[in-house]
Amino acid sequence: MSDTAPRSAYAPTRRTVPTRGRKRATYDRALVHAILDEGYVCHLGFVRDGAPVVLPTLYARVGERLYVHGSTGSRPLRAAGSSGDAGLPVCLTVTHLDGLVLARSAFHHSVNYRSVVVHGTARQVTDPAERAVALDALVDQAVPGRSADTRRSDAWESAATAVVALELEEVSAKVRTGGPNDEPEDLELPHWSGVVPVRQVLGPLVPADDLAPGIPVPDYLAAL
Amino acid sequence: MSDTAPRSAYAPTRRTVPTRGRKRATYDRALVHAILDEGYVCHLGFVRDGAPVVLPTLYARVGERLYVHGSTGSRPLRAAGSSGDAGLPVCLTVTHLDGLVLARSAFHHSVNYRSVVVHGTARQVTDPAERAVALDALVDQAVPGRSADTRRSDAWESAATAVVALELEEVSAKVRTGGPNDEPEDLELPHWSGVVPVRQVLGPLVPADDLAPGIPVPDYLAAL
Repeated sequence: MSDTAPRSAYAPTRRTVPTRGRKRATYDRALVHAILDEGYVCHLGFVRDGAPVVLPTLYARVGERLYVHGSTGSRPLRAAGSSGDAGLPVCLTVTHLDGLVLARSAFHHSVNYRSVVVHGTARQVTDPAERAVALDALVDQAVPGRSADTRRSDAWESAATAVVALELEEVSAKVRTGGPNDEPEDLELPHWSGVVPVRQVLGPLVPADDLAPGIPVPDYLAAL
Repeated sequence: MSDTAPRSAYAPTRRTVPTRGRKRATYDRALVHAILDEGYVCHLGFVRDGAPVVLPTLYARVGERLYVHGSTGSRPLRAAGSSGDAGLPVCLTVTHLDGLVLARSAFHHSVNYRSVVVHGTARQVTDPAERAVALDALVDQAVPGRSADTRRSDAWESAATAVVALELEEVSAKVRTGGPNDEPEDLELPHWSGVVPVRQVLGPLVPADDLAPGIPVPDYLAAL
């Protein structure tokens, strides 16, 4: 890790260096971005009354910053705001499952996956210009190009939406690829062994029941 | 919720009743089980040094109990063990993304999903019989029927594997289905609106490079 140029990798910290599976850990910035950009839902962890809470939520990446939004009434977003400049300590995790790895031995069963874990402090976004960028990014994370083809939020809707930002500073990724790693003495066992690939597919599109007639499927959707 | 028979639903608690989106929350036991049984990877949250940590990990359900396993060297599993009878407070979340919901307004963009959030205390499993059940379940959660077609863990492998259990007691699910919920005055806007379905698909199988010749694909895999 120490031979990686600072620009191209996140600096490892005590909590981003795993105790196990270190060889699967990476701090490569481009890889982290790619994993994040492929996802829709993250799992956002925070502490409430001393206990952990993990909620699924949409997110978007803009440069070296992630945005999460939600109702101004939601508990974590309220906490990020009410804590003022201190913000809310969070852990944001994105995981893609790529395959079920079936080894001869139960012990070596595994999964192929790519995950990113971000530690940091979520702060509420109040600047109107940054909020607008974040809200567009949250729509475009799901479908690139979509935000330009919507009615943007009006003042009431914007006021009802909390947006929090999390810097990409303390970040690590983990990746497992390939087939099973069986023990040499197990290779002749009569159990089928290999990988069941897992992937996420989109479509076909389901138009809204009340879609006005004559509205074509836009190019940015047809490309999905 | 109060009119639901106790046997068929989990009792809501202060932290399983959301502050927002209550109409999407459910405590139905059969639905919770179905969501859990369809998943492979959960996101496990715990508190370390006062800060939240969220890690993806495999899990399995056996009745009203979830099992998670890992290396005995992994931090959360070590914490669940070293804390003795007290166990480790955790939040375990499983999410299935079912669709991207594209409304005319940015504000009403959403996703269809099914999620389960379990709050509780993870305790280390030390009883050999329960450990054997859990380790089989963890293999069968990925591919039902697979555990019987593996070499079970030997004493060394078993000793290297930590297993923790989490009771399904404080549990809630959230589900969103259907199309966009646009404002009436937005229905005539010229933006395509509807749902981009998202689903996870398996296969085709990739045999291990070193798979011994003559081993057929077992029925439980062909059925996937």
